[in-house]
Amino acid sequence: MTALSEHLAALRALVGEDSVTDDPARIAPHMADWRGRYTGSTDIMLMPGDTDALSRAVRYCHDHGLPVVPQGGNTGLVAGGLPGLNGRREILVSLKRMTSVIHVDADDHSLLAEAGCTIAAVQDAAEKAGRMFPLSLASEGSCTVGGTIATNAGGVHVIRYGTMRRLVLGVEAVLADGKIFEDLSPLRKDNRGYDLKQLLIGSEGTLGIITKATLQLSPAEKSRATAFIAVRDPGAALELLSLARDHGGDRVSVFELICETGLEMVLTHIPGTRRPFEHISPWYVLLELGGAEARSGLTGPLEKLLENALEAGLAQDASIAQSNRQRSEFWRLRESLSEAQSKEGASVKHDISVPVGKVPAFLTVATPALEAAFPGIRVTPFGHMGDGNLHFNVMQPKGAEKGDFLALWDGMNRMVHDFVTDHGGSISAEHGIGTIKRGELARLSTPARLETQRAIKKALDPKGILNPGALFN
Amino acid sequence: MTALSEHLAALRALVGEDSVTDDPARIAPHMADWRGRYTGSTDIMLMPGDTDALSRAVRYCHDHGLPVVPQGGNTGLVAGGLPGLNGRREILVSLKRMTSVIHVDADDHSLLAEAGCTIAAVQDAAEKAGRMFPLSLASEGSCTVGGTIATNAGGVHVIRYGTMRRLVLGVEAVLADGKIFEDLSPLRKDNRGYDLKQLLIGSEGTLGIITKATLQLSPAEKSRATAFIAVRDPGAALELLSLARDHGGDRVSVFELICETGLEMVLTHIPGTRRPFEHISPWYVLLELGGAEARSGLTGPLEKLLENALEAGLAQDASIAQSNRQRSEFWRLRESLSEAQSKEGASVKHDISVPVGKVPAFLTVATPALEAAFPGIRVTPFGHMGDGNLHFNVMQPKGAEKGDFLALWDGMNRMVHDFVTDHGGSISAEHGIGTIKRGELARLSTPARLETQRAIKKALDPKGILNPGALFN
Repeated sequence: MTALSEHLAALRALVGEDSVTDDPARIAPHMADWRGRYTGSTDIMLMPGDTDALSRAVRYCHDHGLPVVPQGGNTGLVAGGLPGLNGRREILVSLKRMTSVIHVDADDHSLLAEAGCTIAAVQDAAEKAGRMFPLSLASEGSCTVGGTIATNAGGVHVIRYGTMRRLVLGVEAVLADGKIFEDLSPLRKDNRGYDLKQLLIGSEGTLGIITKATLQLSPAEKSRATAFIAVRDPGAALELLSLARDHGGDRVSVFELICETGLEMVLTHIPGTRRPFEHISPWYVLLELGGAEARSGLTGPLEKLLENALEAGLAQDASIAQSNRQRSEFWRLRESLSEAQSKEGASVKHDISVPVGKVPAFLTVATPALEAAFPGIRVTPFGHMGDGNLHFNVMQPKGAEKGDFLALWDGMNRMVHDFVTDHGGSISAEHGIGTIKRGELARLSTPARLETQRAIKKALDPKGILNPGALFN
Repeated sequence: MTALSEHLAALRALVGEDSVTDDPARIAPHMADWRGRYTGSTDIMLMPGDTDALSRAVRYCHDHGLPVVPQGGNTGLVAGGLPGLNGRREILVSLKRMTSVIHVDADDHSLLAEAGCTIAAVQDAAEKAGRMFPLSLASEGSCTVGGTIATNAGGVHVIRYGTMRRLVLGVEAVLADGKIFEDLSPLRKDNRGYDLKQLLIGSEGTLGIITKATLQLSPAEKSRATAFIAVRDPGAALELLSLARDHGGDRVSVFELICETGLEMVLTHIPGTRRPFEHISPWYVLLELGGAEARSGLTGPLEKLLENALEAGLAQDASIAQSNRQRSEFWRLRESLSEAQSKEGASVKHDISVPVGKVPAFLTVATPALEAAFPGIRVTPFGHMGDGNLHFNVMQPKGAEKGDFLALWDGMNRMVHDFVTDHGGSISAEHGIGTIKRGELARLSTPARLETQRAIKKALDPKGILNPGALFN
């Protein structure tokens, strides 16, 4: 067996001094997961400056059977980008030095960026060119192009613009043996056999390490109209969604569900927040229309939609943002939900999806069942109702001991995931499987799905060196 | 070796008398390709009535090493659904008996259909529910759900709604060993590892036989505005496209390029067609805006857009359809291009794509080079400029002998494909590879792409029984 020092020296020779480190102080910031629940460990961190350097390093690791774990912005919620969990010895590959937006083509509505570029930087580059990169999620200031592709990230605009999968026109990636797969041309139509990039999207670093991507831009949304709406229950929210799409077509760009329990936590814990209207309702919807029309072209259609909704009894009250400031206030209520919950106490998280039409049925069945099984808990679901994705979070009982409550995590997960499966849903809507949901994936997948996934992994990474702790048990 | 009669008897026992035939008269209609260039042959045709029957049959074929070729509407243009080409012995699997639309969910904007259902039937079912299934292509009355998924079909609405890939929410398929892969839930977000359905889409029957699909519906386009526009050259068309998207955002649902040579063939050969305006221009654009707005809500924006285009010199003349009848007349000019060309004489076809922004450059380089290499030919490109996809068809010289001209097919293909590759394009934009482009795919693909595709095929169909003549050499 080659000693660690020999690997270090060999990798330094291959990729350069500045692209390899074993300095614990430099490595440490990459070892903590976003929620602070997991801590990774590694002897070596690679920080390649370009694709060729990464290719050489991966080839070396492949030849020597050294597993590697790629990491983007380290904002993941399923511990999929941390090396060394469960005692494995793995090398960390950080893409943090490959951060360029290489090229923006406004006419083509496309952009080429390196994997370590943040989503916020992509959004900015698109905006400067008079275009829009529509992926939008809470971590956009830190999360990266490579990471969001590897996890097929979602966020608040999926109802209109799709997940990252729909926004990727091309990728470049380093495969398990170090070979570079290059497919970066911004083609809208390309039917040359199996679409490998579709396989890399959402593969969580287990089939290749994404190094660059060509992303699809949209025409800028020159006008937006935003409303905060009180609804009686999720069933009414579903009908409101249908009405909104009948009126606004695919200009409905945001449709988020918020429960009163969550809103109250925001008002309690987040300074400067206030209710959009006095009416207290068990549920609310944050709705936004977006279009290429000139400024304020959408306020009229939104008013008309809300009139109809109020008349039909689908909404109890509603407020349309009259300024950018008010729009930001509405958004802050939605975006502060996670932070407010963590200030309120411990919570067990579920990133689940069901068919949009089954959201009400799922909530009606799952919520009381959980409340009965775990007395005192507070179910505070919220999220992207427009695409059936709920963050079905369960707060600890008031005054309960945090540790005791978190010990219930796995059992509660299983119960929620069973309800999700009964409703034809997914136990991972947008966060991925990572290392923490592998057991549940194996428990709830059909043999055909599991066998096929394993066969693909074995075919493209026969030595199992790419992120071996993720996805599979 | 088991005799043919034994296989027939065994398959009949497994799937029922009515699902198997060796009657040449019943088989014959399935053996001719759409263009009449290829003729398949087979001893056995399977026509399963449901997924379980197909599963049993495929398991038998797998166990006995009998290759199978799936066929949908048999409208493909690359001979990918014909058994027995090049002397192979293959069983035909026709999905033509599995034609049900099983379920339409208007609130969920989704629809579940069997693989043999035609796209026209899907469109009709969606329309009855007040929704729209946006895939639209010339063969929609015959082509099927399964076939369009297996080939990732495109058509005229891709600029706005994407190819079939974006419209598929779920699939059910029979895998090589007969196992059924079921993933039909209409989830908008689902990140449970590798997305096998993405691999099946565009795999041309080589990884599984699609039996059902859940398709995504759109809000109905309640209003449409359509214009026929004269433009100086493809460069002006590109600028017009940018202007249109600046004005109309993603409501630009059609952007088709037509050359005068092609238009003149339509006027000559297709009865009842006429020019939309007197102005004769080397190029034209068919542009359509679509939206959920009430009737005629888009005529104003289209007028404004065309005013700007005329002022800026991007358009020389334009006519907006004033009635459904006039709209149909404009569309007929576009849709008759293929038929008019075939009436004019023989043509060599290229279904190619380049990045949208490179369409003008490609035409500027490729057209004169071909004219120089093959004197007298008439290059008549047309197609989906909005997504960079051209049907770059080359007509025989006037009065030339058809057979002599068609003998040039392969050489001409190679020349065009080299220009396409130089421009970062694809040699198959929407038709697929089938059996006829395998050589070109192998010639022009990188080793990383080819090796990966082969590794996936081997992993999921180790015996090579699924459509063995397609994709790979």
